[in-house]
Amino acid sequence: MKILNGGLENVKGFSFSTIKCGIRYENRLDYALILSESPCNAAGVFTVNKITAAPVKICRERINAPIRAILINSTNANACTGAQGHENTVTLTGDIASKAGIPENSVLAASTGIIGRQLPIEKMLLSHKELIDKLKPENGHSVAEAIMTTDTIPKEAAAGFDCNGASYSVAGIAKGSGMISPNMATLLSFILTDAPVARTDLDSIFKKIVKKTFNAITIDGDMSTNDTAIILSPASGDYLSGESLKEFESALEYVMNTLAELLIFDGEGATKGVKISVVNALNEKEAAMIAGSVSKSLLVKTAFFGNDPNWGRIACAAGYSGAAVEEEKLSIYINKKGLFVNGKPSEIDYKEIEDILKERNYTITIDLGLGDGDASMLTTDISYDYVKINASYST
Amino acid sequence: MKILNGGLENVKGFSFSTIKCGIRYENRLDYALILSESPCNAAGVFTVNKITAAPVKICRERINAPIRAILINSTNANACTGAQGHENTVTLTGDIASKAGIPENSVLAASTGIIGRQLPIEKMLLSHKELIDKLKPENGHSVAEAIMTTDTIPKEAAAGFDCNGASYSVAGIAKGSGMISPNMATLLSFILTDAPVARTDLDSIFKKIVKKTFNAITIDGDMSTNDTAIILSPASGDYLSGESLKEFESALEYVMNTLAELLIFDGEGATKGVKISVVNALNEKEAAMIAGSVSKSLLVKTAFFGNDPNWGRIACAAGYSGAAVEEEKLSIYINKKGLFVNGKPSEIDYKEIEDILKERNYTITIDLGLGDGDASMLTTDISYDYVKINASYST
Repeated sequence: MKILNGGLENVKGFSFSTIKCGIRYENRLDYALILSESPCNAAGVFTVNKITAAPVKICRERINAPIRAILINSTNANACTGAQGHENTVTLTGDIASKAGIPENSVLAASTGIIGRQLPIEKMLLSHKELIDKLKPENGHSVAEAIMTTDTIPKEAAAGFDCNGASYSVAGIAKGSGMISPNMATLLSFILTDAPVARTDLDSIFKKIVKKTFNAITIDGDMSTNDTAIILSPASGDYLSGESLKEFESALEYVMNTLAELLIFDGEGATKGVKISVVNALNEKEAAMIAGSVSKSLLVKTAFFGNDPNWGRIACAAGYSGAAVEEEKLSIYINKKGLFVNGKPSEIDYKEIEDILKERNYTITIDLGLGDGDASMLTTDISYDYVKINASYST
Repeated sequence: MKILNGGLENVKGFSFSTIKCGIRYENRLDYALILSESPCNAAGVFTVNKITAAPVKICRERINAPIRAILINSTNANACTGAQGHENTVTLTGDIASKAGIPENSVLAASTGIIGRQLPIEKMLLSHKELIDKLKPENGHSVAEAIMTTDTIPKEAAAGFDCNGASYSVAGIAKGSGMISPNMATLLSFILTDAPVARTDLDSIFKKIVKKTFNAITIDGDMSTNDTAIILSPASGDYLSGESLKEFESALEYVMNTLAELLIFDGEGATKGVKISVVNALNEKEAAMIAGSVSKSLLVKTAFFGNDPNWGRIACAAGYSGAAVEEEKLSIYINKKGLFVNGKPSEIDYKEIEDILKERNYTITIDLGLGDGDASMLTTDISYDYVKINASYST
């Protein structure tokens, strides 16, 4: 596997376009189209929120069909918009299908932005000719830009690998920032590959890697109505198998892991990325409960922001996670330096600990001493800016 | 029932003292003693965090004994302090018992403050003579002051009632501020009454009212290692029954409800107190899940702070609560004005809604349209000051 510069434009067989449609604001990229020159196998992971946006419902219906395109808008989530919202997405994807000469159910859709407002569908339909006319293989980067909401940087990653005498690429983009929490950890992510992978392989590998990457990060514990991660792979050609399939999996994992890290470090107002590593819990499920509880604790996250060696808050959040915790067996470390070991506060060189806390990244290890269950999660701090960004989003 | 001014000093048969012991900071009230002139029946509700502070463990052991005193310190939680921490509380309560001439197991204890540091026990033992010498029936208010940590005001409430030709009082104090979440919603609360109530009645009535008051408020979703609520009632005299017991229950509910409201409005950095009222959920348990999910959502709470009519975040948090939610039956109201009704965004007069949002208190009603389960919770916003207070607590 080799790391490639840039993003989606690395992948052969796809073209891209983005426009400033004025969906909610003037003069910003807010509408994007990804078109494949041939039918693709697709796999998707979507929000498990019971309130789901119209495009998520439509993706769920179409994900097993041969896919040709993904139509994406930012600034409006098309969630809580009822039958009208659903009809609007059907109309928009249908119009793109008709103009591009592809089947209606081969077009997936995704939206992100404010909840509860209808899309300005007339304006969007009028823009479709331009959206199709502008399609070019080299426009991949602009899609990463067009899907941003409060993100401060576009997020993309790409990797290549050779097998059977051919060169393949895997590339992806993502947007996140607020409402980032496991199941799913990203609002929107789109991954493309020119390597042909059978549908069942694509589905199982993609879901396995989502679990390790996007579902192992948290910013604010909220789970969106629109979370969507989709991967497309050509449905024609000889499907990869054996070692080739493993090469593909490595490249995909690199891409998605890189996107997950970019999502964390661009979390709204985040100044830190902290890995919460839980080891020796009763079992893996309980380890994940503890990692989740500590990662989401407001008191822990504000202490990270303040460079405050307040490990008691970490012990406390582990204690209310619902998992088994025995105080006398519990240890807490920061970058392997003991803060609380086997139920006893350590003699701490506070200067040394504060130097670590001032770093942008560090690892908190929580050792339960109870079993062999491990889990980890990446989290951020909660800063003044988080409150500022989120106090003024819709108005 | 009549509302009384002041707090614990209304209750006959108890005396109080507080001192500046210098447990963590110089020159602030940090150590308090409540002494009953006769043995009391006690009931208690404690944190369900698996990491519990030493004084909580000791209260659990002694709560069914005849109780004579409660020894309380602020600024140090005596949590995550292992066997030494436990021994320290045993030594402190034992010394008070011996100096006051009461049984060792008649002294309860409570602590609040930083986690993971040993109490300065020598200094505390040396202060015990002064603590006992200063005991006076009129010192009740100073106990409310001595138990504060980041609270900005002491919290106390009192009520009286007459029955069988006698006058009785119920009064309580509480401290909260951070780490306020259901089970328990208060760090520390102490309730006293001069009305004799049988142990089983005291226990069942107290737990019922805790559920409706302290466990129905949330500030930051964290649950402390030290949460303690205790009530004491004289173990001698004719126990109340029938109508008299109902009078007592009404007075107690008034006191605890008032304390819960004071806790919410003094939540760290809070500028709003918002009631989340969930109606017509599938059942009461699911209603409580939705009220909890919405009350704890960071995105909802920052929107409250920003006076942002972003009801989509409320729908979203209801959707990921785990409870049944059907978008087309869901309605969201603010002070009875519809924002989203039966799955459709309302035509909103934004000026009118923003006027409500600028108020210090309002009610969000979430109607699921699915059953007859109702639940409500009081919550706060999350402000810059919340982050500021919690980013710098221990250092």
